[in-house]
Amino acid sequence: MPPQAPESYVDVLIIGAGPAGFMCGNALAAAGDIKVRIIDLRPSKVIAGQADGIQPRTIEVLQSYGLAERLLREGNQMHMCAFYNPNVAGEIQLTSRAPDVTAPTARFPFEVTLHQGAIEQIFMDSMAAHNLRVDRPVKPVAIEVSRDPEQLRSLSSHPVKVTLARLDAAVDADKLEVVHAKYVVGADGAHSWVRKALGITMEGEQTDYVWGVVDMIPDSNFPDIRNKTAIHSTNGSSMIIPREGDKVRLYVQLSESDVVDPATGRVDKNRMSSEQILEVARKTFQPFHIRPLSDVEWWTIYIIGQRVASRYSVEDRVFIAGDACHTHSPKAGQGMNASMNDTHNLAWKVVQVLRGWASPSILKTYEAERRKYAQDLIDFDKQFAALFSGKPRTSNNQDGVTHEDFLKAFQTFGGFTSGIGVHYSPSMIVNTKHQNSAENLVIGERMLPQVFIRAADAKPVEIQDVLPADIRFKILVFLGSMEESRLSEIHTFANELSSPTSFLQRYPMGRQVSLMFDIITIVAGDKQNFNYLSVPAILRPHWSKVLLDDTDVTGSKGGGAYKRFGISTEEVTIVIVRPDGYVGMIAPAVALEDVHAYFASFLATHTV
Amino acid sequence: MPPQAPESYVDVLIIGAGPAGFMCGNALAAAGDIKVRIIDLRPSKVIAGQADGIQPRTIEVLQSYGLAERLLREGNQMHMCAFYNPNVAGEIQLTSRAPDVTAPTARFPFEVTLHQGAIEQIFMDSMAAHNLRVDRPVKPVAIEVSRDPEQLRSLSSHPVKVTLARLDAAVDADKLEVVHAKYVVGADGAHSWVRKALGITMEGEQTDYVWGVVDMIPDSNFPDIRNKTAIHSTNGSSMIIPREGDKVRLYVQLSESDVVDPATGRVDKNRMSSEQILEVARKTFQPFHIRPLSDVEWWTIYIIGQRVASRYSVEDRVFIAGDACHTHSPKAGQGMNASMNDTHNLAWKVVQVLRGWASPSILKTYEAERRKYAQDLIDFDKQFAALFSGKPRTSNNQDGVTHEDFLKAFQTFGGFTSGIGVHYSPSMIVNTKHQNSAENLVIGERMLPQVFIRAADAKPVEIQDVLPADIRFKILVFLGSMEESRLSEIHTFANELSSPTSFLQRYPMGRQVSLMFDIITIVAGDKQNFNYLSVPAILRPHWSKVLLDDTDVTGSKGGGAYKRFGISTEEVTIVIVRPDGYVGMIAPAVALEDVHAYFASFLATHTV
Repeated sequence: MPPQAPESYVDVLIIGAGPAGFMCGNALAAAGDIKVRIIDLRPSKVIAGQADGIQPRTIEVLQSYGLAERLLREGNQMHMCAFYNPNVAGEIQLTSRAPDVTAPTARFPFEVTLHQGAIEQIFMDSMAAHNLRVDRPVKPVAIEVSRDPEQLRSLSSHPVKVTLARLDAAVDADKLEVVHAKYVVGADGAHSWVRKALGITMEGEQTDYVWGVVDMIPDSNFPDIRNKTAIHSTNGSSMIIPREGDKVRLYVQLSESDVVDPATGRVDKNRMSSEQILEVARKTFQPFHIRPLSDVEWWTIYIIGQRVASRYSVEDRVFIAGDACHTHSPKAGQGMNASMNDTHNLAWKVVQVLRGWASPSILKTYEAERRKYAQDLIDFDKQFAALFSGKPRTSNNQDGVTHEDFLKAFQTFGGFTSGIGVHYSPSMIVNTKHQNSAENLVIGERMLPQVFIRAADAKPVEIQDVLPADIRFKILVFLGSMEESRLSEIHTFANELSSPTSFLQRYPMGRQVSLMFDIITIVAGDKQNFNYLSVPAILRPHWSKVLLDDTDVTGSKGGGAYKRFGISTEEVTIVIVRPDGYVGMIAPAVALEDVHAYFASFLATHTV
Repeated sequence: MPPQAPESYVDVLIIGAGPAGFMCGNALAAAGDIKVRIIDLRPSKVIAGQADGIQPRTIEVLQSYGLAERLLREGNQMHMCAFYNPNVAGEIQLTSRAPDVTAPTARFPFEVTLHQGAIEQIFMDSMAAHNLRVDRPVKPVAIEVSRDPEQLRSLSSHPVKVTLARLDAAVDADKLEVVHAKYVVGADGAHSWVRKALGITMEGEQTDYVWGVVDMIPDSNFPDIRNKTAIHSTNGSSMIIPREGDKVRLYVQLSESDVVDPATGRVDKNRMSSEQILEVARKTFQPFHIRPLSDVEWWTIYIIGQRVASRYSVEDRVFIAGDACHTHSPKAGQGMNASMNDTHNLAWKVVQVLRGWASPSILKTYEAERRKYAQDLIDFDKQFAALFSGKPRTSNNQDGVTHEDFLKAFQTFGGFTSGIGVHYSPSMIVNTKHQNSAENLVIGERMLPQVFIRAADAKPVEIQDVLPADIRFKILVFLGSMEESRLSEIHTFANELSSPTSFLQRYPMGRQVSLMFDIITIVAGDKQNFNYLSVPAILRPHWSKVLLDDTDVTGSKGGGAYKRFGISTEEVTIVIVRPDGYVGMIAPAVALEDVHAYFASFLATHTV
């Protein structure tokens, strides 16, 4: 490296602007006080193809960043699934249709499809509003993590040194630069340079399922061309994913022999063409026809690999995320979702550590939570891919996959494929001790969507919308009913929260509670009579923070939450929602000490 | 006028960029092929104050232009009304709360408040996307309507000549210009220059109710400060209108003697101050306090006038709209809404005439429909204002207004104040002959909101969202059930629609049906089994145009429309929705001739 290479310092350097990198960059930029840089080696964003399915939970997450509205406006929605199997004549026919999303608590009971470039544009526009732009084409050429324990411990040090090369530099002298980062996020895809540079291995194997993918506007008489459709034919399997506008993505099962170069044993795209894939589809779709109305927009082939990185971090200073740590089949629609949710999980932790709020030890929960998820995902994917790539059962093939097998797998794994069932195990930030105080709000899972009525103005509000991904912990205080007989208990609780030893007073710098915590109080009361001013002042930092478990003025939204969640209206129950929307702890007011202890395990005390 | 004044030609000149002018300008600009110009004499848009309440029907209308999403994001919502009356001690107390919107079919069961400047900005951004900007500060100084019958009849002539003065012109030579317009819309407010220049008089009178208005962020312990609240106190009446953010608008009843200049008999703002209004409020609010947290944002006083213009048009070439043709009390929240809906009614008619689709005679329906509405509005307003400005009934005042009187008026007029009940009388574009084919879809009223399920992809869609304000008539074909026994009837109907004498083939230029009509077919079928390709091709111009009267995959939305509308599933029923969203005609398929006759009465035939 020439000695004159310029050097700079950042809090976080993100390598790779794909779904994981964008989610990370947007979250850090939105925090407002983090010095962040995001680089990518491609000169521009993805134009066509690539991943494009957004699951129900990911829509909720995007909503928590204020990005779902545009996604829903621009994307296509898949509400229904259709299943086709061979009839006695060997031609496919509709076996049944079923809801695409089977998770009963999904706030958005559908998947959204939109091409990756459009999704990236949503992130780019949001990041730009926070003054962050992707620096491209830039690639990392060297990475070095300090081995000095002192430096690794220090919050003010920049222990990761990354050398970057600007690929469009006019002269060599402008080409290289050195960035010193407090943290680095390697979100640089399945062939991750960061992962390889750090010597992190991938565990798992490649299957022998080979698939072709074609994006096009179809000319077809197939009745379910606008539904997510799984076709098992005697000629192989196929899947339809309808997309924005009139576009459709077609997955077509191919023979290994057609696409693998015998010399290298590797899949060789040159051995295939979109015409050949469509010729396979033509046979699979009999008696229906399907062909491009004009041109094929994009196509590729791939072989399914199911692998997960051996670790997700080096010294909790460099993290890898997204495809860099897990690969699986695209048809279960997990790739982009898992990637975005990796960095959604990581970003708030990094910000809280950088701000000096949380101990760096919470960073360990990133690998613990997300690697376990990736392993579960791959276990699921193995079963799903085998069922999907298997031949259908027919009179000639009694060992084939039955529709019932496939449908059962599809529905059993509904919670999983929707992202709704993601469950984080107990850790310093997931404390299940008082799960019985709200039996149906599962600690470690995302806060259930539920409409409440704002006490001051009777506006129905979705609870998830008052839990934005804004780095703060949300303290939901289910106060129960405010009958006369309970007022002294309620006021005692409010006084305890106001005490200097309370977590509310102890951790926020300068005792500015709302910097670090958002308090939302939920009363079992009715909109006709309740006076929001009767709630103790510490529990209503703003008029909008008092909610009622009641229906809206039309009687069609809201109500029944205490019962649904399994929360008593006769005592005070605290539900702590993490900044990423997952329930971190639940406790009755009588166990307030346990709440103090929960926060004490990972938050830093600030003396005023 | 100097001889060198430049001259130009436009299709439509809009004078005045307030709610009526913006609605008109946006609709015409969105049409895409209309040469339109909009001028305003103010150098910039409204900053604070003015009208700011958007009613349920107006939200639906804005949604039909794609503008509601932003309105809902930026505005405050009023779901609940509260009523306060004096108790025996003479202090006010909560009597009851009730839903603010009582119209049961309102799609948006609330009112939105947002300051006029923000609403204007929404229009300005939308107009800018269609390349239309307000030309300001420019005022009209002369207007002349041709008296030549030939010219007035001709669609290619520009029979209105308007002289404009550019108020910020540096030199006099740049100041004046002449615009020749096919049509002029005078949307220049209560003191309309256009109205006066054309000698149109206002009919009606001024009341002696005087009110003060103050916009502020309040410091208050009043429990209903975030609800729309009507207060009848022994000290006079008051109304609270919560607004965006933490702002509140306060209407306070004043004494005529305090504000009217005895010398002139006119209201004189100099005789009042915001402090004096707030001092009246202080007494009215006892035992609660209310005062500005910091500054008063805006204030004014007004005396209620209830007047309507004697006519709305000159030669159907110049139209007046909005406050230029009707004034009433602001507390019923009608002003801005009536204004926007005036030009929403007018714009599509002007475009259809300019395109040569419709006969100029449809322009007469503008005055017929909107002037009758304004008269009804004023009749309502008289009753409402009297009840609201009246003293409450107390033991000392047995002639006062009881809460029951007021609440009854409030609820009786709910359909009216929400805008939902607007009903246009029979005319060439409102044909009630076959009302009994869909008893609960009232011809002359707006198409009822209803969720249907898109047959091809099971997506729930709100029918109003597939009826955008895009100048086209929408042909809703309620096909009924598609049982085997009905297929020949259905195919016969499809064939009749395809015949050269059918309205679908007769009117669109070049027989491009979708230019002029949008066909939406609604089947009584279920999403699990229905094949949208079974609908005859003429009834499904695109896969998205076939809807099912079914619930969505969660079972929570949609279904029951045939029954709700009173439409038989055993025959074909045609519902014609006007471009402004109002039902124009309903007919059974057997009366297809009546549908042809309906369109023949105002559409022009084009020989191919």
